[in-house]
Amino acid sequence: MSNTEFGFISSVARLFADIPRGGFDAIGDDCTCIGIGGGESLVISTDMLVENVHFLRDASSPYELGCKSLLVNLSDVAAMGARPAASLLSLSLPRDATGAWAEEFMRGYHDISKRWGVALVGGDTTSSEGGIAVNVVALGRCPTEYIKRRSDAVPGDAICVTGRLGASAAGLRDILAGMADTDYARCHRLGRARVDEGAWLGGRAEVHAMMDISDGIASDLRHIMECSGVGAEVHTECIPTDVDVETAVCGGEDYELMLTVDAGCCDKLREDYNARFGDELHVIGRIVGSADGRIVWLDNGRRIAPDWRGFEHY
Amino acid sequence: MSNTEFGFISSVARLFADIPRGGFDAIGDDCTCIGIGGGESLVISTDMLVENVHFLRDASSPYELGCKSLLVNLSDVAAMGARPAASLLSLSLPRDATGAWAEEFMRGYHDISKRWGVALVGGDTTSSEGGIAVNVVALGRCPTEYIKRRSDAVPGDAICVTGRLGASAAGLRDILAGMADTDYARCHRLGRARVDEGAWLGGRAEVHAMMDISDGIASDLRHIMECSGVGAEVHTECIPTDVDVETAVCGGEDYELMLTVDAGCCDKLREDYNARFGDELHVIGRIVGSADGRIVWLDNGRRIAPDWRGFEHY
Repeated sequence: MSNTEFGFISSVARLFADIPRGGFDAIGDDCTCIGIGGGESLVISTDMLVENVHFLRDASSPYELGCKSLLVNLSDVAAMGARPAASLLSLSLPRDATGAWAEEFMRGYHDISKRWGVALVGGDTTSSEGGIAVNVVALGRCPTEYIKRRSDAVPGDAICVTGRLGASAAGLRDILAGMADTDYARCHRLGRARVDEGAWLGGRAEVHAMMDISDGIASDLRHIMECSGVGAEVHTECIPTDVDVETAVCGGEDYELMLTVDAGCCDKLREDYNARFGDELHVIGRIVGSADGRIVWLDNGRRIAPDWRGFEHY
Repeated sequence: MSNTEFGFISSVARLFADIPRGGFDAIGDDCTCIGIGGGESLVISTDMLVENVHFLRDASSPYELGCKSLLVNLSDVAAMGARPAASLLSLSLPRDATGAWAEEFMRGYHDISKRWGVALVGGDTTSSEGGIAVNVVALGRCPTEYIKRRSDAVPGDAICVTGRLGASAAGLRDILAGMADTDYARCHRLGRARVDEGAWLGGRAEVHAMMDISDGIASDLRHIMECSGVGAEVHTECIPTDVDVETAVCGGEDYELMLTVDAGCCDKLREDYNARFGDELHVIGRIVGSADGRIVWLDNGRRIAPDWRGFEHY
């Protein structure tokens, strides 16, 4: 969620404070959670993708859009440390995006579902007098003790990220410049979800807070800070990226995971992660006690003051 | 869901048949269900409302639309015999429907939530380059043995409906004719959910199949017939309505409940329903063995052959 969206959500949360939550988490994390007995919880996320806001019909194939619609929700489930189990899909389709378009979309949605064994268990289809709108609900399961919330970061924690940042934003830039066929553009069109990594990290007690990076760490890290009442220092030279640092920290839709880790266990966790996934878990900074809401950006130890805000949806 | 939608859903169900359902119901009912331990199930519904398809911004206030968005989903939960517990809301709003518009929408959504103690536990907000789109997910709880599915009708069952049919369709007609202030029009704009009635009927073992009437019984009864592999006779003179019979059976969005009841227990159930809710449960026909997919319409015992199809969304 963007910062503007976060303001709207805060006012909605206040409005609904007079209704008991009946065992569900409050709004504000990647998913809501509810205990389902046997020490297990169900986690639930929902995301809406809208034509000309989240995608351009000319730049994304229906197959890619079908993949991405589900992937961005699986990413939310992974960010809780849970494993996805099922989804519900609502489609609003204009007349020129039914038939073959809808079949290709469903083929992409199916291939991602199949890859991780995610059942399609409900949905809604309707016509549209405007553009395409897609709403996906993803449901995941998780031992309750494994759930990773944004509110669990502790001063002293190392801040880690999976993968490399900024490729999706670079891809969006390519697409808007008319270059729809670059590797970055493909990365933007398809989306990503660290499904296996998220479930594996969920099982590690030394991982405290976790979320997925959807609006860039310049925005997303602030949500961990706000929810946990902590501050954060980021070493910009440690940010894993193939593009410039500003794109890496402000660009949207990387769908990598950001997590905070008990500093004493971090080397062992990274070693195990590397052995399991053949990939790096990058340390980019640490959680500190100060809670003034500003990220401290460092460049090789020297404090810098860039105006980095992260991706805003509106 | 409409008949056209039903065809698309059947093809999707076939495409996804190779993925294990992991304890979830297949698609095709008002809600999907999953056991959550302790003899309880969670039921989950999702519905999308789109501007100029499901509502006209000039004819519905944002408050009314906020109410209706949640009500149509609570109706799906009620149709399973469950009690609603929580919802997730996705909003895609164009620039001229943010600010005061969004606040009024949320006030309506909140008032319905508050009335039945439904917590808001998640969601998504995004801008729109087209019209307004609203997706709601409703979650309900229910003792697993109480769940009422479309597939549980038995030959000999009485077919019953709550309330009176056709008012919402008459209201849509009024709105399209420029008369937005009639009682019928208000009924169409607000929607309805038989929340208490659905949960109460869920607890009665003599109620076999149940669903909500969203596209008119001419369409909706066919889903019970198809899912249960049965036929149905309807006595048109018994259909409770204040408008003409065709509007009552073909009009959309009544959000009354249709249920099939063990015929031997039907009088007692109707008596208890009347004592509990001060309202009639109307018997309109019976389930028969023949399963050729056609509803047998009777007018005072004489067979008629009208071309009644129910409301189609596209």
